[in-house]
Amino acid sequence: MNGISQSDERDGFGPAAPTPGEVRSACRSGSFSGHTSGLAERHVQGNVVILPQALAADFLLFCQRNPKPCPLLAVGEPGDPALPTLGAGIDLRHDLPRYRVWRHGVLVDEPTDVAALWQDDFVGFVLGCSFSFEQALMDDGIPLRHVQRGLNVAMFRTSLPTAPAGPFTGPMVVTMRPLSAAHAIRAVQITSRYPSVHGAPVHLGDPALIGISDLSRPDYGDAVEVLPGEIPVFWACGVTPQAALVQAALPLVITHAPGAMLVTDLFNHQLAAF
Amino acid sequence: MNGISQSDERDGFGPAAPTPGEVRSACRSGSFSGHTSGLAERHVQGNVVILPQALAADFLLFCQRNPKPCPLLAVGEPGDPALPTLGAGIDLRHDLPRYRVWRHGVLVDEPTDVAALWQDDFVGFVLGCSFSFEQALMDDGIPLRHVQRGLNVAMFRTSLPTAPAGPFTGPMVVTMRPLSAAHAIRAVQITSRYPSVHGAPVHLGDPALIGISDLSRPDYGDAVEVLPGEIPVFWACGVTPQAALVQAALPLVITHAPGAMLVTDLFNHQLAAF
Repeated sequence: MNGISQSDERDGFGPAAPTPGEVRSACRSGSFSGHTSGLAERHVQGNVVILPQALAADFLLFCQRNPKPCPLLAVGEPGDPALPTLGAGIDLRHDLPRYRVWRHGVLVDEPTDVAALWQDDFVGFVLGCSFSFEQALMDDGIPLRHVQRGLNVAMFRTSLPTAPAGPFTGPMVVTMRPLSAAHAIRAVQITSRYPSVHGAPVHLGDPALIGISDLSRPDYGDAVEVLPGEIPVFWACGVTPQAALVQAALPLVITHAPGAMLVTDLFNHQLAAF
Repeated sequence: MNGISQSDERDGFGPAAPTPGEVRSACRSGSFSGHTSGLAERHVQGNVVILPQALAADFLLFCQRNPKPCPLLAVGEPGDPALPTLGAGIDLRHDLPRYRVWRHGVLVDEPTDVAALWQDDFVGFVLGCSFSFEQALMDDGIPLRHVQRGLNVAMFRTSLPTAPAGPFTGPMVVTMRPLSAAHAIRAVQITSRYPSVHGAPVHLGDPALIGISDLSRPDYGDAVEVLPGEIPVFWACGVTPQAALVQAALPLVITHAPGAMLVTDLFNHQLAAF
């Protein structure tokens, strides 16, 4: 989804790239409810999970035990929708373009605001997203086919287990990007610098070794072909915690809607570990 | 060759690991003329090239243009066999276990001392060697099959060109190590830290893409099998400059004999870039 022209969804913004604060204001006012890919470019966008404090410790532990699919950027205080380390004035109740509301593991609504659902015991989690490392890859001259084709990245459930914590468990979900060998090697170097947005790949080469039977049939997102001379390279994916949340069938959990991320004030390059 | 027990070749040393200075002294006195792999462990060992000053500028340029196969650790002054940045008292005329003498591209001798051949215009070059990064890989728990089997690493001439300089040209020679995908990814990270000993791999996966038709028939060294689920990973190799030197058919050039490296006072970890 990254880097795609979506001018129809950006009508609320002027010709200049909006700042992160402008994107969040447009979400808050209801004037923007689209995909955030390519918006406020070079700024970190995050996956969002909101759940009751009683489950927060287990989810935090799940993230701690599975840092590659669940890289935590910030955790809020119970009942507090602010995330001051990610941006001035962030209010998780309003500042995403679109949310998903899950009850007992079932998607029941996709609202653009969750103020009416907010609880005094809600804890907000923001997890890193591959948009940040995709920008770093493209900046280095590594083409990404799904971006070139205007597609969502291909995602697959694997046979790689996560380390369970409380009710949270399930398989690791990965993204796949086909790369030449030289680009795959360079991509390992580049993404290794970004542990807080999934870091280095978890696999490359034969998909069957991680339980993927058919690269042309992703479990989420869109298929892209692997051309002769290319290697499929697999990164841990932020859909992993979402799948674990659905599987846990909690009474109530709120997440961002796919592609409708929290736009933060952080710059992608600030996440570079070296 | 790294890490192999070669007790027969180490008879000149006591039960404790010899220091680099002790290894060089044993070379100088003539009491040691064997392979250096596993000796003075954790210390940097180097490929050596000695040639006349008139060709030194071109060879230096060849190294500058091909840093992955030709990572320079030190260059001596014309006529001076010392290399003070690599070790106190190093004398390139005596301090290698065994040398190779090439005349017009033909191997004519393998002496244990080259004092009789030394010229006032000779310039010594020391290039990094994969022993250093192999130690780092094994320290990280990545098994290396050729080490486990007591074999020399498999080396292949490729279709990857070097950037020529003066009379020096020729194909890149690579080493191949079969690794699991997870170890291949980790090996990219680890060897990226060591640009002065060949750095990150130059290729992984399909050998045909770099002109290698049969992994079971290396051009130098010993074959090792690639097991199911493994990926062949290829690093630039210090045999590249040797091949370029042979091809240039210089009137006189001296190199180390295979596996009989210069043992320096540097520690491998001192080469880590980060």
